[in-house]
Amino acid sequence: MVCVPEPTTLHRRNLLAAGTAAVAAGLASPASAFETGQPGTEPNKPGTEPPKAGTKLPGYVAWKDADAFTVHSNQTLETKRGLADGVITPIDRLFIRNNVNPPGDAIVADRDAWRVEIAGVAKPATLTLADLKRLGLTSVATVLQCSGNGRRYMQDMLQPGQKISGTPWTVGAAGCVIWTGVPLKAVVESLGGPAPGARFVTGTGGEVLPPGLKPKDIVVERSVPLTTLDTVILAWEVNGAPIPLAHGGPLRMIVPGYSGVNNIKYVKTVALTEAETDAKIQAASYRMHGVGEKAAPSQPSIWEQPVRSWISVPLTGGPAGRTLVTGVAFGGLHAIAQVEVSADGGKTWTRAPFVGPDLGPYAWRVFALPIDLPAGTHVLASRATDAAGNVQPENTPPNGGGYSYNGWRGPAITLEVA
Amino acid sequence: MVCVPEPTTLHRRNLLAAGTAAVAAGLASPASAFETGQPGTEPNKPGTEPPKAGTKLPGYVAWKDADAFTVHSNQTLETKRGLADGVITPIDRLFIRNNVNPPGDAIVADRDAWRVEIAGVAKPATLTLADLKRLGLTSVATVLQCSGNGRRYMQDMLQPGQKISGTPWTVGAAGCVIWTGVPLKAVVESLGGPAPGARFVTGTGGEVLPPGLKPKDIVVERSVPLTTLDTVILAWEVNGAPIPLAHGGPLRMIVPGYSGVNNIKYVKTVALTEAETDAKIQAASYRMHGVGEKAAPSQPSIWEQPVRSWISVPLTGGPAGRTLVTGVAFGGLHAIAQVEVSADGGKTWTRAPFVGPDLGPYAWRVFALPIDLPAGTHVLASRATDAAGNVQPENTPPNGGGYSYNGWRGPAITLEVA
Repeated sequence: MVCVPEPTTLHRRNLLAAGTAAVAAGLASPASAFETGQPGTEPNKPGTEPPKAGTKLPGYVAWKDADAFTVHSNQTLETKRGLADGVITPIDRLFIRNNVNPPGDAIVADRDAWRVEIAGVAKPATLTLADLKRLGLTSVATVLQCSGNGRRYMQDMLQPGQKISGTPWTVGAAGCVIWTGVPLKAVVESLGGPAPGARFVTGTGGEVLPPGLKPKDIVVERSVPLTTLDTVILAWEVNGAPIPLAHGGPLRMIVPGYSGVNNIKYVKTVALTEAETDAKIQAASYRMHGVGEKAAPSQPSIWEQPVRSWISVPLTGGPAGRTLVTGVAFGGLHAIAQVEVSADGGKTWTRAPFVGPDLGPYAWRVFALPIDLPAGTHVLASRATDAAGNVQPENTPPNGGGYSYNGWRGPAITLEVA
Repeated sequence: MVCVPEPTTLHRRNLLAAGTAAVAAGLASPASAFETGQPGTEPNKPGTEPPKAGTKLPGYVAWKDADAFTVHSNQTLETKRGLADGVITPIDRLFIRNNVNPPGDAIVADRDAWRVEIAGVAKPATLTLADLKRLGLTSVATVLQCSGNGRRYMQDMLQPGQKISGTPWTVGAAGCVIWTGVPLKAVVESLGGPAPGARFVTGTGGEVLPPGLKPKDIVVERSVPLTTLDTVILAWEVNGAPIPLAHGGPLRMIVPGYSGVNNIKYVKTVALTEAETDAKIQAASYRMHGVGEKAAPSQPSIWEQPVRSWISVPLTGGPAGRTLVTGVAFGGLHAIAQVEVSADGGKTWTRAPFVGPDLGPYAWRVFALPIDLPAGTHVLASRATDAAGNVQPENTPPNGGGYSYNGWRGPAITLEVA
């Protein structure tokens, strides 16, 4: 059992103390440009004082609601449970997770001038954001979720000698937001359609790569299957306003149903490619492999999000009697079909009604079930089923990267009712 | 023709210069507690310098996006056209219109302690917000719109000697937001159901009434038909976060499909009543009557919003060629069924597709239609039809209060294309 302090910290001070050139050069994590899932690379230091609630936020997100976050590091801010779980998540409460430091805010000074190269089409071109706005308009609500959301529950399941590195997210590296932009398909069609042989959509982020390191080791470049061409949008707004720099503005590639890392911030190139990129973040990270094993391109990539749910209210006990159990549930590429709630740790389940508007298959649904709780100890849990019949398991076996946890046991709530 | 400066101003300085006790006592308008529709009462002073774009906002809304507003007065802030017209409107861009100054922010220091009296039910009770949260949960997306949104277009249609007082809103006193709270019906059922004879839902706002004036002249108390009991919610969140004080937090009565004034801020009493309230804001204001006539209880009350739409992009001309015409369309109690766009001032119309998620019958839909514009002058307009077959007229004849404008001609855009 590895003891992880809660919340685990990656103080800027400690990062610098680690003394790697990578940190000084602007990477989010000293040993790797991203959450590699490789064991032993993250400088978690038990005993380091965790940030206090209400800690001042890093400057680039100083506009956010400081009280809403647990600050794991400058690049990893987790929303406190219950504060992001409405029909939509306010942007000032949306989690932050960067693989590489964001670019300077000069890139949002003139948003319409942002340029994105479209390759792997009949007539490749570089388009401005102003050009994109003339090609089409749509909005899509998606659950944006870090691939490692829930990693903490896997870390808690490890055997002696095992380790899973990475931020110990519980449920707060997720939010449901509405993106507005142009369908990628409209852009591709305006340029003559896909080039022959295209099998992937590959997006490249606009991060400034630090000198002295191999670009392929650092660049945030991800490939997703070409089937996503029907749903990907190039988005310039979120929740009705321009996308903040910290969330990938001026332009972000949104891949509905796919986990966070596939949604490329400050996207500067979108290419329809025959092969997956060989960038490290695709080839040697975000792969499904055993604890202690190395990531490899032969392993499944972290793409579609599994079906998941959690309870938002209540999180603490109170007086006996009627209470309203609420939470959120979502699928990946399949809409949510039903959610059940248990007040006895999973022995019995009751279907919970969904409430509020349905924002589409990639959004989450809010559920609410009134229950009567007598005095005593109760274990509340929720269990979702998607439209394809996938049901949340009790637990998700740990994997090397701590990715895609979707058990109902991890986020269960133990309540003492008086 | 009355010449109204654009934007008309109600500088605090000018209000005070008007020298009425009412202003000093905290009313939003010197001659009346609210937009009375009475002629000759508003101190519009042609020649007064309008606020500059980016003017500092009043302190109680200093957290809003200053660049998004035209400040008509301390209590009337209009969102600039095109900045509120996504699927949802960000709260920091949502218009402001108060009939009476908001209460102090002490009432949002402990939101769950807010008390609301429920009357006209079998077992009347005073409940806290914490109590309400145990009774049920739902969310509803609504178009929140000032009853006078579009008044400017009526003011522009007046004959010599005629006058319509009130803020000259064009399209920016409206937004689409998601409210979360408890269905009023669940609250009423928990208290034994409606008392016999109930015909109206009457809500009373928590404004602090200035001394020395008759409370019935000032109180923001509105009655709506009991049919709304199926849809009214008592809301504590908007767009996923607690309702700001400036928008009626900690608790607001939301009446979907009904214009803004019926959505009672800081609601302190909800009563199922046999008769409409005799408060001035119900009996002698927000009534449909002729220009120059006095309001009276016999006239129709300003309740349901009429079907309406407007274009958000483009608002100015550009080079000839393909452009994307986008905008929003909504009904009142009926969902929007279709919207058409004209590029020739209403001679011919083309149906425009809706884009993005459908947030329900009380929300607006975004539409987007690609059109080709050759060089020359073009008049762009949109015309919506609701599910009951109501179609926007070309114009809405002026009425005494300047309420419920829904013509397609007023917000039409004249473009010079080079």
